[in-house]
Amino acid sequence: MIHDKTRDLVLKIPEKKIILLLLDGLGGLPHPETGLSELETAKLPNLHRLAATSSGGRMKMVEPGVTPGSGPAHLSLFGYHPYEVEFGRGALEALGSDFAFARGDLAARANYATINVNDVVLDRRAAKPSDEENRRLCAKVLSGLGGKVEGTQIYLLPGKEHRFTVVFRGEGLDAAIKDNDPQREGRKLIPIEAGRPQAAASARVVNRFLSLAREILKDEPRANGLLLRGFSGLPEVMPFNDRYGLNAAAIAAYPMYRGVAALVGMTVLGSPKNFDEEISLLERKYVEHDFFFVHFKGTDAAGHTGDFLEKVRQLEIVDAMIPRIEALKPEVLIVTGDHSTPCICKEHSWHPVPTIIRSPLALSRPDAKLTERSLMVGDLGVFHATDLLTLALAHASRLSKFGA
Amino acid sequence: MIHDKTRDLVLKIPEKKIILLLLDGLGGLPHPETGLSELETAKLPNLHRLAATSSGGRMKMVEPGVTPGSGPAHLSLFGYHPYEVEFGRGALEALGSDFAFARGDLAARANYATINVNDVVLDRRAAKPSDEENRRLCAKVLSGLGGKVEGTQIYLLPGKEHRFTVVFRGEGLDAAIKDNDPQREGRKLIPIEAGRPQAAASARVVNRFLSLAREILKDEPRANGLLLRGFSGLPEVMPFNDRYGLNAAAIAAYPMYRGVAALVGMTVLGSPKNFDEEISLLERKYVEHDFFFVHFKGTDAAGHTGDFLEKVRQLEIVDAMIPRIEALKPEVLIVTGDHSTPCICKEHSWHPVPTIIRSPLALSRPDAKLTERSLMVGDLGVFHATDLLTLALAHASRLSKFGA
Repeated sequence: MIHDKTRDLVLKIPEKKIILLLLDGLGGLPHPETGLSELETAKLPNLHRLAATSSGGRMKMVEPGVTPGSGPAHLSLFGYHPYEVEFGRGALEALGSDFAFARGDLAARANYATINVNDVVLDRRAAKPSDEENRRLCAKVLSGLGGKVEGTQIYLLPGKEHRFTVVFRGEGLDAAIKDNDPQREGRKLIPIEAGRPQAAASARVVNRFLSLAREILKDEPRANGLLLRGFSGLPEVMPFNDRYGLNAAAIAAYPMYRGVAALVGMTVLGSPKNFDEEISLLERKYVEHDFFFVHFKGTDAAGHTGDFLEKVRQLEIVDAMIPRIEALKPEVLIVTGDHSTPCICKEHSWHPVPTIIRSPLALSRPDAKLTERSLMVGDLGVFHATDLLTLALAHASRLSKFGA
Repeated sequence: MIHDKTRDLVLKIPEKKIILLLLDGLGGLPHPETGLSELETAKLPNLHRLAATSSGGRMKMVEPGVTPGSGPAHLSLFGYHPYEVEFGRGALEALGSDFAFARGDLAARANYATINVNDVVLDRRAAKPSDEENRRLCAKVLSGLGGKVEGTQIYLLPGKEHRFTVVFRGEGLDAAIKDNDPQREGRKLIPIEAGRPQAAASARVVNRFLSLAREILKDEPRANGLLLRGFSGLPEVMPFNDRYGLNAAAIAAYPMYRGVAALVGMTVLGSPKNFDEEISLLERKYVEHDFFFVHFKGTDAAGHTGDFLEKVRQLEIVDAMIPRIEALKPEVLIVTGDHSTPCICKEHSWHPVPTIIRSPLALSRPDAKLTERSLMVGDLGVFHATDLLTLALAHASRLSKFGA
């Protein structure tokens, strides 16, 4: 988190541009057979050359040992500690999905559940359906509703087993809505209620949604009802540009990353379909902004499937694109990730993320490489993600001195 | 300190066991002649092999530059910042001694002092007796009292020079008792008073203790009175098991370490006499718990005497025992210390403590050793002791992801 007194030092120098190249799930762990991580295995001449002329280190995302989802991880590297931004659980889930959750939307966490004719919850998890069954149920409810309830757009985001997220999109929705989930089996569903008068209309929409969904699901042997909890909208945060004196743009192919960037007030550019289109967009819009968040998804996707050689290949795709980014001559070029996604985990992990900051003021080590182990030594040490932007400003000579 | 939001992520997976092997006073400093520390001098094939397959780093115990006593150091590595646990000075002293200070006990810091017939304090330090003289005085008072005052058990824990600790053990003792120490020479002793009605009976016991001690010491030329201050019992802390979702056991030969473990709510096992008995106990009780704190004292004891080769020998004793611990196949094996006790200091020091965490998710360096200088580089960097348990949970896959 940038300290208020640090924020007072921020200078606006638009010609000193900063590019934050975000390789999703960048960090890895050694392959059991070779003892080398994905970064240590890949051929990365451009990235390693960059590392050798950069300040390097590793970045903690939340707290030591804590593995972040994508939403909280991005907030953290944009400088907003995810434990301090007040997120409702619904909003947190929606933001972590590949759905473009937007201001004004209302989200709730949901379970498929088994409910008897007297509204008593018999099984809060509807006997744990498969993920595929979950997707079928979401599609069935949505098509049954025709995608809308009383003019409010409904989105169902399937999750694991019985879990999913409901998003309501419409005019004047208010998040002060209480759960219908009694939290224990053998208890009755709680009718949805507004937590304050302004939420009365929203509560009516949610109740109508629930009764329609019950009707659509009535012949399902297990998943014949829904439990909703954690109603919430997007949190209000201090705009990124105000905080850092920047005119920031986000370039990302996936909705979730566009969503988090929009949440903090970045301008979201175009609709790139892949990394090549992202870099072309960066080139075209380069004169218009002084900060660019460029998101690359392939590394994380390969990490999730556990395909080691695919993650290696994705890293090499990025490496090949580096000269095009360098050709723009940004004052500061950062290469980092939002968390580690080691192939041996097939999931995010808490391991600090390899990070390099290339600038004329970098304190580099000529033998440094962009790998987990090489960057255990470096100018940046192990630092917190919420300090990344402050360091970026410093490297761009965009922070004045504190005191005479 | 584990954050509340991190605590919400804790999973209970009893089969993923964690062993914390604590080598008291582990860290050292180079021998002036060889330039090698105790760890660098010892032959430690097993510990170095572990280090090469572990996440490694060095652990700060309190604040940079602050040397902890044993009590605060252990609290810190159990995840309780010792500056934030509200300890009375008496309880802190008692907990730092080799006395098994327990819940319900009352402790006060004490001085031998010179007091005249009118109760005026002439010398608050009784001309600074030697440590040996201090021990003689404590023994004299204790035998004079027959070890008891009005049914309350009395323990006197000799300290350095004029300092010692008094512990009262009995039914219904209340810590709200004011000091009798006027803090300045030339002032009269303050009669002990209760700070609230419930402490009246305890205050009476303390006053009776003081007058009996005066009588016993009346022929001492200097140390003819006692000053007491900082009455306190054990602080209440959130139980370790609730905090980390563990079923923790402590294995330690010395009372003080058993006391701190009991304070945070660990089950203290058996009465082992030495390290071999400790490891046998670990083997016997291994199925019953999922977290084991195993304390080894020899390294610290050798550090205090300044016997470099003895500390080397103690390290080698531990090294030989490592295969027995590994044979239990814990998911996570941590080797660390509670502070450094360099032989050249003959005392604790503030230097960060070499630490390794061995698990399937460790980011290891094949050339790493369990030494102060080798672990200046490593996955863990320099981290705070209060984060050790959170990292242990992460390595045991016992923390869920924060946000989607």
